[in-house]
Amino acid sequence: MTISKLIGTVGLWGLGLCATAQIGTSVNRAPNVVVILADDLGYGDLSCYGHPTIRTPHLDQMAAEGMRFTQFYVGANVCTPSRAALLTGRLPIRYGLTGGTGVFFPNSAGGLPTSETTLAAALKGAGYQSAIIGKWHLGHLPQFMPLNHGFDYYFGVPYSNDMIPQVNKRNPPLPLYRNNEIIETAPNQDELTKRYTDEAVAFIERNKNKPFFLYYASNFPHVPLHASAKFKGKSERGLYGDVVAELDWSVGQILEALKVAGIDENTLVIFTSDNGPWLLKKKEGGSAGLLFEGKGSAYEGGMRVPMLAWWPGTIKANTINTALATTMDIFPTVAKLTDTKLPKGRVYDGVDMLPLLQGAADGNRDVVIYYHRSEVYAIRKGPWKAHFTTKPSYSREPAKTHPVPLLYNLLEDPSEKYNVNEQYPDIVADLNEELEKHRATVVQVPSQLEAKIDK
Amino acid sequence: MTISKLIGTVGLWGLGLCATAQIGTSVNRAPNVVVILADDLGYGDLSCYGHPTIRTPHLDQMAAEGMRFTQFYVGANVCTPSRAALLTGRLPIRYGLTGGTGVFFPNSAGGLPTSETTLAAALKGAGYQSAIIGKWHLGHLPQFMPLNHGFDYYFGVPYSNDMIPQVNKRNPPLPLYRNNEIIETAPNQDELTKRYTDEAVAFIERNKNKPFFLYYASNFPHVPLHASAKFKGKSERGLYGDVVAELDWSVGQILEALKVAGIDENTLVIFTSDNGPWLLKKKEGGSAGLLFEGKGSAYEGGMRVPMLAWWPGTIKANTINTALATTMDIFPTVAKLTDTKLPKGRVYDGVDMLPLLQGAADGNRDVVIYYHRSEVYAIRKGPWKAHFTTKPSYSREPAKTHPVPLLYNLLEDPSEKYNVNEQYPDIVADLNEELEKHRATVVQVPSQLEAKIDK
Repeated sequence: MTISKLIGTVGLWGLGLCATAQIGTSVNRAPNVVVILADDLGYGDLSCYGHPTIRTPHLDQMAAEGMRFTQFYVGANVCTPSRAALLTGRLPIRYGLTGGTGVFFPNSAGGLPTSETTLAAALKGAGYQSAIIGKWHLGHLPQFMPLNHGFDYYFGVPYSNDMIPQVNKRNPPLPLYRNNEIIETAPNQDELTKRYTDEAVAFIERNKNKPFFLYYASNFPHVPLHASAKFKGKSERGLYGDVVAELDWSVGQILEALKVAGIDENTLVIFTSDNGPWLLKKKEGGSAGLLFEGKGSAYEGGMRVPMLAWWPGTIKANTINTALATTMDIFPTVAKLTDTKLPKGRVYDGVDMLPLLQGAADGNRDVVIYYHRSEVYAIRKGPWKAHFTTKPSYSREPAKTHPVPLLYNLLEDPSEKYNVNEQYPDIVADLNEELEKHRATVVQVPSQLEAKIDK
Repeated sequence: MTISKLIGTVGLWGLGLCATAQIGTSVNRAPNVVVILADDLGYGDLSCYGHPTIRTPHLDQMAAEGMRFTQFYVGANVCTPSRAALLTGRLPIRYGLTGGTGVFFPNSAGGLPTSETTLAAALKGAGYQSAIIGKWHLGHLPQFMPLNHGFDYYFGVPYSNDMIPQVNKRNPPLPLYRNNEIIETAPNQDELTKRYTDEAVAFIERNKNKPFFLYYASNFPHVPLHASAKFKGKSERGLYGDVVAELDWSVGQILEALKVAGIDENTLVIFTSDNGPWLLKKKEGGSAGLLFEGKGSAYEGGMRVPMLAWWPGTIKANTINTALATTMDIFPTVAKLTDTKLPKGRVYDGVDMLPLLQGAADGNRDVVIYYHRSEVYAIRKGPWKAHFTTKPSYSREPAKTHPVPLLYNLLEDPSEKYNVNEQYPDIVADLNEELEKHRATVVQVPSQLEAKIDK
């Protein structure tokens, strides 16, 4: 894709992009950015977040050399909208990635609208090469695919690894893409992590002399669980632990490749997950640790995820950061780092978290919005979280709307056990007001998740 | 107390003790031993075990310099019997610290029988000076007090810090002892951690040239929560977090004192807790992290606790150990280290865990017994745990006995969510057999917990 074509797709943006194009070639080179996204990994699934039998020495080491966040959130409680939020810095409600089927399925006809600007597209202006290795899940009709959203290279699958005939016979075989071409139709999933790792390392080696953005979106530990022979049967936690251990190894390979290339001190690496653990899958799903609930829920277990940030020489080693931050903050942070102007004419839900990475105790974020599909189920402001609506995840039990929202102090009660709405009517009123303030920023747009190919 | 008096109290033991008395003065000096025991601290309450808002930098550092255990157990799910198990290496059922009131209260007339040998008493033979700083809770009539159980020095309180008139007006004021004397009757609990720390550091300084055993049994974070001015109001987790942070600071002071004295490489330090979090106390109680239930329960949250082992130069830094071990293993381990023979004529439930500290992946323990008062509620063998009887902790709900015990694979299912007894009848049979094997080793003795002063 050429720059002129890209500018054609980003609509409102335009000028800011050109004005900052020289940053990538300056002496104080803008940093490379690597975002590693696990799939359905829970808050409690790493050694460094307290899991007793899953061993993650490379991620633990990454935490020891970097910063570990304990109150980091995703933009949605399931896959498709969460990934969209990360790549756009905006809540999915703003561009129709809510409602309908919740996530894209093989027969979905929608996608991330081309009017949205992904971080990859934004970084074009700063001379970045961008790659996505792994799972896309933002629409698989040609116009929605990664190379039409600012990425220069794609190796991976278009949606979840369970969207295969073995799970639902209506599913087509799982396509494996290189750029816009399907290169295989039933890749051996046991080998996927290894292949993704090789691709990610090769991309780093190819681009070590120019700025790059690598988005490595693993398919795992989403079910069906797959690990290579080297890892299978090795973890005390069973196959789920094997899969996390291989992902851990993979992260180690990425960090090692950055060191070998001599660019570790010029690369910001972020490791996180797209949503909480899929508890419905029992032992094949993960753990949210002390947090309540998992994937599909607006309780903490659904939307608070592990997050490690690593940037030797810039991020202080062995730091724990309890400030609020979200995947949507990555976009504005990288924009700031690269002197890239945010596209105009749109609301950004992400805020620059660079002060946090640089050691500030308080960041720019005080509020977290918890959507369940098209509805705000909860809002957090500082320590306080109000649940306006609650619903067990992946259950037919109907949602329950609370005339007076349930109120929890998440700093003191991270497991959301002790509702204190009667004791704090002023806080409840303030959070009701936050809800109205947020709603006032939302413009109705068509859902991209309702359209189906075979309709 | 003189050696001859001590030998008088240890009954069956005798000769083994004298035979090893020279170890303490040899050139390769036997190591000092420091056991730091928190009170009601849960599995999930430290940063290094994943708590999001409790900050424990000194304990995290201790873990980074030492070994962190993830499947470490106590000998009982409440205070008195758990402490007895730690100090004797034996299950409380064997010497009557079960039944009755569960723990000692100010009007209790019983105590740890003088026929039992504590670790402090055993180490006399190896020339050790022993001190207990903090909470005793093993009987407070004169014959049961620490100086009659092998300790050379005592500074602390005889039972829990909530056994005071403010909590129950029948309680007497809380006595603070130095050796056998009550030196205060209502110590300011805000200052206790600081005073205990000063006492512990002074003991280390006084004894730096001879082998010592320091048992520092904090009263916290047991309720009522108390922290000094320096810590109060500082933790995001509220007062509970303040109290844990002060305990964390205290541990840092102990390790620093060992370094300053130049004896850090000759000292084994163990940090652990007496039982799980007291969930009934809500925000004033702790968290068991991903484990189910808390203090008073035979589920994992009641009996699996944090454990850090530190011994620079001997224990490999930054190690996570997932092997099974218990507080009862400390006694045989230290006996091994000091070439002290275990008193004869009694069953030991502890096993030597030195191989684990020296880096072995598997230890000598395969089985964990979970008592609730006088009854075995559950047994773990390898990955498998069978619950013969279950009961919610601190509830009037009756205990439920399971004709076929509930079965969980704790490696894969640490939260005890997925009972698999129907799938594994052979494992159930094997664990039923373990129960019978264990019962065959138990001899009925009178309960020390039934006698009351005012009866």
